Amino acid sequence: MRLKFGRQKDMKDVGILKQALPYFRRYKNKTFVIKLGGGILKDKKSLDNIAQDISLLYQIGIKVIVVHGGGYQATELSKKLGIIPKIIEGRRITDEKTLEVVKMVLAGKINHEILTVLKKYGVKCVGLSGIDGNIIKAKRREPVKHINEKTGKMDNLDFGYVGDITGINNELIMTLLEHEYMPVVSSLGDDGQGNILNINADTVASNIAISIKAFKLIIMTDVNGILSNPEDSTSTLYYVSREDILKLIKEGMIRGGMLPKINESLEAVENGVKRVHIINGSTENALLIEIFTNRGVGTAILADGEQAEDYTT
Amino acid sequence: MRLKFGRQKDMKDVGILKQALPYFRRYKNKTFVIKLGGGILKDKKSLDNIAQDISLLYQIGIKVIVVHGGGYQATELSKKLGIIPKIIEGRRITDEKTLEVVKMVLAGKINHEILTVLKKYGVKCVGLSGIDGNIIKAKRREPVKHINEKTGKMDNLDFGYVGDITGINNELIMTLLEHEYMPVVSSLGDDGQGNILNINADTVASNIAISIKAFKLIIMTDVNGILSNPEDSTSTLYYVSREDILKLIKEGMIRGGMLPKINESLEAVENGVKRVHIINGSTENALLIEIFTNRGVGTAILADGEQAEDYTT
Amino acid sequence: MRLKFGRQKDMKDVGILKQALPYFRRYKNKTFVIKLGGGILKDKKSLDNIAQDISLLYQIGIKVIVVHGGGYQATELSKKLGIIPKIIEGRRITDEKTLEVVKMVLAGKINHEILTVLKKYGVKCVGLSGIDGNIIKAKRREPVKHINEKTGKMDNLDFGYVGDITGINNELIMTLLEHEYMPVVSSLGDDGQGNILNINADTVASNIAISIKAFKLIIMTDVNGILSNPEDSTSTLYYVSREDILKLIKEGMIRGGMLPKINESLEAVENGVKRVHIINGSTENALLIEIFTNRGVGTAILADGEQAEDYTT
Amino acid sequence: MRLKFGRQKDMKDVGILKQALPYFRRYKNKTFVIKLGGGILKDKKSLDNIAQDISLLYQIGIKVIVVHGGGYQATELSKKLGIIPKIIEGRRITDEKTLEVVKMVLAGKINHEILTVLKKYGVKCVGLSGIDGNIIKAKRREPVKHINEKTGKMDNLDFGYVGDITGINNELIMTLLEHEYMPVVSSLGDDGQGNILNINADTVASNIAISIKAFKLIIMTDVNGILSNPEDSTSTLYYVSREDILKLIKEGMIRGGMLPKINESLEAVENGVKRVHIINGSTENALLIEIFTNRGVGTAILADGEQAEDYTT
Amino acid sequence: MRLKFGRQKDMKDVGILKQALPYFRRYKNKTFVIKLGGGILKDKKSLDNIAQDISLLYQIGIKVIVVHGGGYQATELSKKLGIIPKIIEGRRITDEKTLEVVKMVLAGKINHEILTVLKKYGVKCVGLSGIDGNIIKAKRREPVKHINEKTGKMDNLDFGYVGDITGINNELIMTLLEHEYMPVVSSLGDDGQGNILNINADTVASNIAISIKAFKLIIMTDVNGILSNPEDSTSTLYYVSREDILKLIKEGMIRGGMLPKINESLEAVENGVKRVHIINGSTENALLIEIFTNRGVGTAILADGEQAEDYTT
Amino acid sequence: MRLKFGRQKDMKDVGILKQALPYFRRYKNKTFVIKLGGGILKDKKSLDNIAQDISLLYQIGIKVIVVHGGGYQATELSKKLGIIPKIIEGRRITDEKTLEVVKMVLAGKINHEILTVLKKYGVKCVGLSGIDGNIIKAKRREPVKHINEKTGKMDNLDFGYVGDITGINNELIMTLLEHEYMPVVSSLGDDGQGNILNINADTVASNIAISIKAFKLIIMTDVNGILSNPEDSTSTLYYVSREDILKLIKEGMIRGGMLPKINESLEAVENGVKRVHIINGSTENALLIEIFTNRGVGTAILADGEQAEDYTT
Repeated sequence: MRLKFGRQKDMKDVGILKQALPYFRRYKNKTFVIKLGGGILKDKKSLDNIAQDISLLYQIGIKVIVVHGGGYQATELSKKLGIIPKIIEGRRITDEKTLEVVKMVLAGKINHEILTVLKKYGVKCVGLSGIDGNIIKAKRREPVKHINEKTGKMDNLDFGYVGDITGINNELIMTLLEHEYMPVVSSLGDDGQGNILNINADTVASNIAISIKAFKLIIMTDVNGILSNPEDSTSTLYYVSREDILKLIKEGMIRGGMLPKINESLEAVENGVKRVHIINGSTENALLIEIFTNRGVGTAILADGEQAEDYTT
Repeated sequence: MRLKFGRQKDMKDVGILKQALPYFRRYKNKTFVIKLGGGILKDKKSLDNIAQDISLLYQIGIKVIVVHGGGYQATELSKKLGIIPKIIEGRRITDEKTLEVVKMVLAGKINHEILTVLKKYGVKCVGLSGIDGNIIKAKRREPVKHINEKTGKMDNLDFGYVGDITGINNELIMTLLEHEYMPVVSSLGDDGQGNILNINADTVASNIAISIKAFKLIIMTDVNGILSNPEDSTSTLYYVSREDILKLIKEGMIRGGMLPKINESLEAVENGVKRVHIINGSTENALLIEIFTNRGVGTAILADGEQAEDYTT
Repeated sequence: MRLKFGRQKDMKDVGILKQALPYFRRYKNKTFVIKLGGGILKDKKSLDNIAQDISLLYQIGIKVIVVHGGGYQATELSKKLGIIPKIIEGRRITDEKTLEVVKMVLAGKINHEILTVLKKYGVKCVGLSGIDGNIIKAKRREPVKHINEKTGKMDNLDFGYVGDITGINNELIMTLLEHEYMPVVSSLGDDGQGNILNINADTVASNIAISIKAFKLIIMTDVNGILSNPEDSTSTLYYVSREDILKLIKEGMIRGGMLPKINESLEAVENGVKRVHIINGSTENALLIEIFTNRGVGTAILADGEQAEDYTT
Repeated sequence: MRLKFGRQKDMKDVGILKQALPYFRRYKNKTFVIKLGGGILKDKKSLDNIAQDISLLYQIGIKVIVVHGGGYQATELSKKLGIIPKIIEGRRITDEKTLEVVKMVLAGKINHEILTVLKKYGVKCVGLSGIDGNIIKAKRREPVKHINEKTGKMDNLDFGYVGDITGINNELIMTLLEHEYMPVVSSLGDDGQGNILNINADTVASNIAISIKAFKLIIMTDVNGILSNPEDSTSTLYYVSREDILKLIKEGMIRGGMLPKINESLEAVENGVKRVHIINGSTENALLIEIFTNRGVGTAILADGEQAEDYTT
Repeated sequence: MRLKFGRQKDMKDVGILKQALPYFRRYKNKTFVIKLGGGILKDKKSLDNIAQDISLLYQIGIKVIVVHGGGYQATELSKKLGIIPKIIEGRRITDEKTLEVVKMVLAGKINHEILTVLKKYGVKCVGLSGIDGNIIKAKRREPVKHINEKTGKMDNLDFGYVGDITGINNELIMTLLEHEYMPVVSSLGDDGQGNILNINADTVASNIAISIKAFKLIIMTDVNGILSNPEDSTSTLYYVSREDILKLIKEGMIRGGMLPKINESLEAVENGVKRVHIINGSTENALLIEIFTNRGVGTAILADGEQAEDYTT
Repeated sequence: MRLKFGRQKDMKDVGILKQALPYFRRYKNKTFVIKLGGGILKDKKSLDNIAQDISLLYQIGIKVIVVHGGGYQATELSKKLGIIPKIIEGRRITDEKTLEVVKMVLAGKINHEILTVLKKYGVKCVGLSGIDGNIIKAKRREPVKHINEKTGKMDNLDFGYVGDITGINNELIMTLLEHEYMPVVSSLGDDGQGNILNINADTVASNIAISIKAFKLIIMTDVNGILSNPEDSTSTLYYVSREDILKLIKEGMIRGGMLPKINESLEAVENGVKRVHIINGSTENALLIEIFTNRGVGTAILADGEQAEDYTT
């Protein structure tokens, strides 16, 4: 038996839950693919925060699939093992030793660290890679002709154990979602002949999102979305259409490392994904702000015919 | 294409969602029976607020069953129709004309007004009474011997079309919950022979809660819970055990109109309901504060072995 | 231990069950929508009889949905409450007070009286309106221009809280049928914004029948079906095609209050309902005779390509 | 377009359906095992009549399992093939040639004739024997010691391919019932080692009825039930308890060929079957009269605690 | 406690299981229809062998449907009963007495003998004919005009109770397969009016295979498949395309009794069956060799676009 | 079109499949837990062989769960990274760096290598650890008192991130098996607070086997089962009872590193696992010989009441 005491603060706070209500209604039972960039996984506290945010989505009935890479951490372990990364024309070559590192870092270290933190916040989750349940059908990337920098002659550039996706089988993912498990997918695949392949994580996220007609694909990276002026990191565009994007690319406002991400995003909104969000994972509460507020924190790329969500007027 | 603008407020606000997270986890897929007293249904704005709160519970995956009476509104319509309420020894007699009023007001007016507001906030709901799907098995209350005030002689007091519950069949309720419908139940029953009966709404709520082993039975009424001192409406007790209750009754601290409600509550916690909350429906956000904050707003009666929820330390 | 005694009568009687067999086979698991007019619900004995007939359909595996109005009873209560019905150009205006009466009478009184009698005959039934489970999507009827009788000038005629159906969501109805519950639907709807609307019961019945591709829509009213000669109430037509109907309308043989009913019926047979029956609810055993005998009691309107049922030759 | 004409007869007749209603309610979804004796299958018209009766039970939702023997027809074919039945001490010996006849007559001829007539009346049925789906677990009957009539010496009496039931696996039967198929079971079994066995059909019926806790086991034979006086075929007892039966046996009122049938019946009511009916299959409409009228046509043996059905007062 | 001893042989043998692995993978959950000719059922040992082979297919997850005739055995019983087979122009006439024999031999004797042996090897099987579960919709074959050999005049040739298939309802078969029962189907049907009909077993097998889009239809007969030279029984063709077949027929290499079988086979591969195998049931292990080895034992007729299975290189 | 040629070898070989038939029958739908020791995973060819064997079990309908450790490989990577293994009193201490290595090697490298080879042989598999789907509930092992070798004083020995299993939740495993996925489980767990723990793989295998009442737990290690004479590696015991084991331990015939494995095995057979097999993974076809032959290759420990399988006499 205990007496009550003042609760003025509570009274005000719980009212905020009501503001979230229209978003809860809109997102219930919808499917979100969330891509976590290797960079934002470096920091334990940051991962803990994001996991907490994701667990909130899970609790209110959003079906979340997490996809992650781990390039940063792979480079780190490679160095410790004395493996010198071969980067040719800006592309990383995955030889056998590098593959060994990649599979350990992605499917072992990072995947299980994500699982462990999500579990701490009450999420029933299952770590996967493209190999599990035949999710990803891939083939080794064909060598390309290029001019050898040393010899100055044309020769074959072999990317090694790098895979290109040729198909997605979402049966396992759907089965797990149906039983309320959250799949956490690392970007490994195989060629069906016993060889593991290293696949780009953005591509994995985008392909899975397309395969399940995700409502949202959210790419958590280390930039503040798409900028109207690449020199000004505060010039984030709130939302853009496909046409806007094509115009920005043409004008050179989207360029460099951002370009492949944006191309995957376009691919997604052109193939059944309703919208792609690009947000900065290092901003506090970035995921919740982007999803539960009118203005968001990054950039939303809208599929044709979709409107920006706006419930707070 | 639209530029961003300041969002300092959002950033702070969404953080509050995280505070609700442990409650979300705890309550997901749990079953709550919420009893709405006729008094708090008088005011349209108040009903709108409560419906919004209930819709939030629904959106985060709590299985809610609403039970309501409507004594206040029945009296009002009776007066308009020139029916004079017969109250003998504090008990209302339900003759045929009164029954006619009760079924119209409860199952027609109030039930459908609740449905309409819940629907406005995105709840798929289904209005029921104890007659639907044979939910309530009831029999007409036996007349009791009493001394006729006029004649001063012993005679039979017949309560008319008043029913006592003899059993609950929760099949329809379970089927609806399973398909994500929220049952809204008015406190009518029948005797299986074609006669409708008027049943006490607290008793209906308590019996349904017991039948489905509800996690919480929440009685929304017009008092501030159980008071340690009935003269002081601010002396609300935060939580009490069964033993505390029995002591308070013995000491006369629980008495009058509160007594039957408390007895139904005891019945509930002694038969599988984990806790009963008694809260004041006219307090703003009462439901959310009681459910999502540590201190709550009314009194929780804990079943033996249960602890008060406390996540905000 | 008890001795037998003569049973000559039984022997003959049970043989009649065999005559019903081809009908039982034909109708098993078929869906019938039965519209009960407010007029035939006035008399308790009549309702009891019809409920018994409907329970027989239920017992032999026909999936029945009952739809009812209650205009007669609404007028009656209005009068008691001193509300003067406003009828302008033959159309009833539903102002706020009238709506209050309508929702009490339809969803409260009539709906629960039907439920209670069906339950007495062993039917598991569930009372609904168009608001439950979002069955009816409606909007308030637009005001129409008309010449004000008093002023003689053109002005807007606002029907008040009268709804037009814009869509049917049969999910709840199908779920209930699947679990062997019989839905009993009163003709209320809402606009999704918290406002209840009064909808024509024939229109509700016809729209639900179309939505679930009902095998039969049976309109129980107070006339003997379609007459070849409107002056002669014994000139009931046994069955008619769509073309017959159009011809009869053209010839003026169908007119007045019958016309809207017939138009709803045509709508039904043109959109997937196999046949519509119009029968006189006050004829004893009307429903059974119409359904289980070759000749029937009212008029069947056949969809194109359908034949009259004829098993008794 | 066709005019109506008089229908006075219909009006009266369909009313009789209402008398059947309480029986329909009581029996819906209940399970009946109906044993057809070989004798009543001799006559095509009689089989047609019984099949029609059974199809009525099927149409109103009773789950029926038919079990049949075929001793009469086996003897007939044996004679045609020149096989002389060996009857020793009143028991038929099933040698290899007799077994050949039995399996052809039971599982081939009779079973398929029943199926074909049931199908004609709209029943989805499946012919089975104890071998299908491992329904019957049986073993060959052990030889017994007896005094050889010719030699006057003690020797072994081998019954040949006669089986005793050691267990029932009702999985296939339940699966078929669930999908609305009616199982029609001939009384063959096997020893699990490749040898077919001839089993008594009453025993098969009784064992299946026990295994599925049938509501009724109905034995259609060629006598008028249990007689209070075996000399007087009109002295049929309406219903009897287990105790009555034991008394009648003790008094010698039940004797001879009736005794094994009655013992199987007792076995049934002592192991979960609610009542066993013994009726004369050659009485017209016997099945319908026994099931749908108060007085019935044969004798009902009631399990302890069961009452005779009586709805026609 | 027991000591080990030499196991050299085991070690080599189990390795052979691995050779079967690619076949196991390929055939898992595929559907095979296996037609057993009456000839190969004559010999008990042969039936035992084939049943064992079929049980292996069942154990590794192939969904098998067995179809059988029984002409040979019908002729045998006819003779014993003194019925003289009427063969007119090479076609057997099924009069009433012959039909009686056919139903006893097929549905009784042969069907149950197959069941009993399959059960011995652990198969859960269910004996059926086309009558069960309305599998075969058939009509009596129309009489044809022919020249009466005796009179030399044109008259009507009535085949008697011979049926032609007008439709297949595979619902029962699919339900049984889903519950892991193996259907064993004898080639009887009925006309829906109570008359049983004798149907050609190859036609039944082919029609069922088409109806369920079987992966393989395997016809076990008494020839070594299709021969490139009909005079040389060792000239079996390994596999043939539809075009090959048409060529062989044109060249007269397929002729006589083989022709109808081949026509049914063509019908099958032209309507969704992937391949038809014709093998000699009297070859030891014929079924296993045909299914689990590269070269097989008979002839495979490939549907257009299908390749011969070849896993043993 | 292709001609046949000699197939004598096939004919003999396929016959061997029939020898496997009784085993196929016995094991269908049974659950096997197979523990793969880190030692036998070193060699790629060996892993390929074992994966092929496991895929055979999968194809014939055995539900297999693979559990693996990876101590050998963890030590190897540790060395490369310059981490010196701390072994105190024969026990490995898992500090933070070692844990980093363990999670990469187990959940990353080994788990995905097993998946990739199983997939090559047609198995739909899913890589898991105890963290996924909350399979393993664990807590960090309590430090134990011991005498510090250096100081000679009593102090606390902290094993670091080593976990003890406190419960198994087999929901995810059962869901995957039901959908025909093969779970491949690495021996990691977590404490529910965000900390990953290293758990003994034999213990994981044994606990999972107990939790799902596995039919067999098969421990593939690098010894030839239990030896009657530990000095003689050819003295393998074919099968032993629990009592035999206890006697052998008492006599010192089971000792050293074998002891914990045997204790886990006893735990298993005492808690619902029918038999535990200990076999040498480096013997060719060891798994197939142990499972599909009478004599096997290692030692079977039988639960009380179980018999050795013996089908080849």
